[in-house]
Amino acid sequence: MQSDNPTAAILVIGDEILSGRTREGNAHHLAQVLTATGFDLQEIRVVSDDHDRIVAAIRALDGTLGGGYDLLFTSGGIGPTHDDITADAVAAAHGTTVEIHPEARALLQERCDRMGMALTENRLRMARIPVGATLIDNAVSAAPGFSIGATHVMAGVPEVFRGMVDWLIPRLPGGRPVRSLSVEVRRGESDVAEDLQAVAGEFSDLSLGSYPFRDDTGWGTNLVVRGLDAARVDQAMAALKERIGL
Amino acid sequence: MQSDNPTAAILVIGDEILSGRTREGNAHHLAQVLTATGFDLQEIRVVSDDHDRIVAAIRALDGTLGGGYDLLFTSGGIGPTHDDITADAVAAAHGTTVEIHPEARALLQERCDRMGMALTENRLRMARIPVGATLIDNAVSAAPGFSIGATHVMAGVPEVFRGMVDWLIPRLPGGRPVRSLSVEVRRGESDVAEDLQAVAGEFSDLSLGSYPFRDDTGWGTNLVVRGLDAARVDQAMAALKERIGL
Repeated sequence: MQSDNPTAAILVIGDEILSGRTREGNAHHLAQVLTATGFDLQEIRVVSDDHDRIVAAIRALDGTLGGGYDLLFTSGGIGPTHDDITADAVAAAHGTTVEIHPEARALLQERCDRMGMALTENRLRMARIPVGATLIDNAVSAAPGFSIGATHVMAGVPEVFRGMVDWLIPRLPGGRPVRSLSVEVRRGESDVAEDLQAVAGEFSDLSLGSYPFRDDTGWGTNLVVRGLDAARVDQAMAALKERIGL
Repeated sequence: MQSDNPTAAILVIGDEILSGRTREGNAHHLAQVLTATGFDLQEIRVVSDDHDRIVAAIRALDGTLGGGYDLLFTSGGIGPTHDDITADAVAAAHGTTVEIHPEARALLQERCDRMGMALTENRLRMARIPVGATLIDNAVSAAPGFSIGATHVMAGVPEVFRGMVDWLIPRLPGGRPVRSLSVEVRRGESDVAEDLQAVAGEFSDLSLGSYPFRDDTGWGTNLVVRGLDAARVDQAMAALKERIGL
């Protein structure tokens, strides 16, 4: 698919995904938001809670560090415990250090006061932010995310991640949303391959894909047409339906 | 966590994951199987249906090509349509070409005969296998996966992927399964951070993690202890429960 939309990657940090304990959902949510708001998500990576691996991944993905993408979003590893090492790794990748951020500290202090809790040393860990970063609002539990270079660092707890996404994405310069149309046919993928390829050749500026599935009544295929030019997407879907006889 | 188990990565190939249309499930399933059978999954990547990106990812991940891991498992892109380009990309990464594999052709022919279908040119695409690869059995729909170097190529349709995993994994030399114990506490992560860190320091050969969550009754945290030495994992969990007062 031809696109001049900003490119993006997602980096998920978490042993619990790699061990199979938790099924990842934040990247899926953000993928939907990015597609709807005109960002071109091109890669997702999941790495373990390991300093060197996180640093290497950020350098490979953050365009301001010579990495591959205009924007990088991370999920996980910014809590109060010893295994929350994302802030330090992001700082290292960006050639800076971590300090207690006054505004982040004030946000945590305010929340602790409101809930009658002490701002302990562990809670204060969540105000450790790379020098030069700006904060991402956390409407759920106060401890902020942050942005530095092209890297936008968000929490792993799904409710908090979603809140941060809701705050952050409208503040980023997006592109044109992708129009996506799909049709389900009750045939195997092989039976529609030729028609699909013919239409894909005619509409080479769009992305045409086929996704086979199996359910109780046998095999079927979802045919999907995606592109930035809504009229072209509509034309391609009409051409596809006509060829297939729908 | 200390481990001399074989390391592994998963590469998911599919625009439909990156667009947010489909929530990825194959990597989650395989992560659980790998953990249970003594493989150390260290990275998951999702890339688009793009030849160069697939080739680059395979080279970065397949240990026999200078990549980072002992084993690489891929999901997706081996069907009969024009956007199924995984076999060509895997061949290119491994410095070989794709040919019709006689055994794969025979499997497809047999299935077509059984179902009264013609082995069309599109269906025959699924017998295109990199030269030098061995086949992975497909109990669901005949079209095989394949293994070359450290790369094991499987289908994206979940039922077929799972069938291939069931066939393949017992044939690979695994290591020791990870023992994992978890306990849920109805406290925020900050309130258990100190105890967790103390026990993690005592049991530095194990992996101790904390995973906060929020539900209807407020915040809680899952504490997880993982390691290869089952007795040590049991000891660490007992120590953790004692410190926290459970």
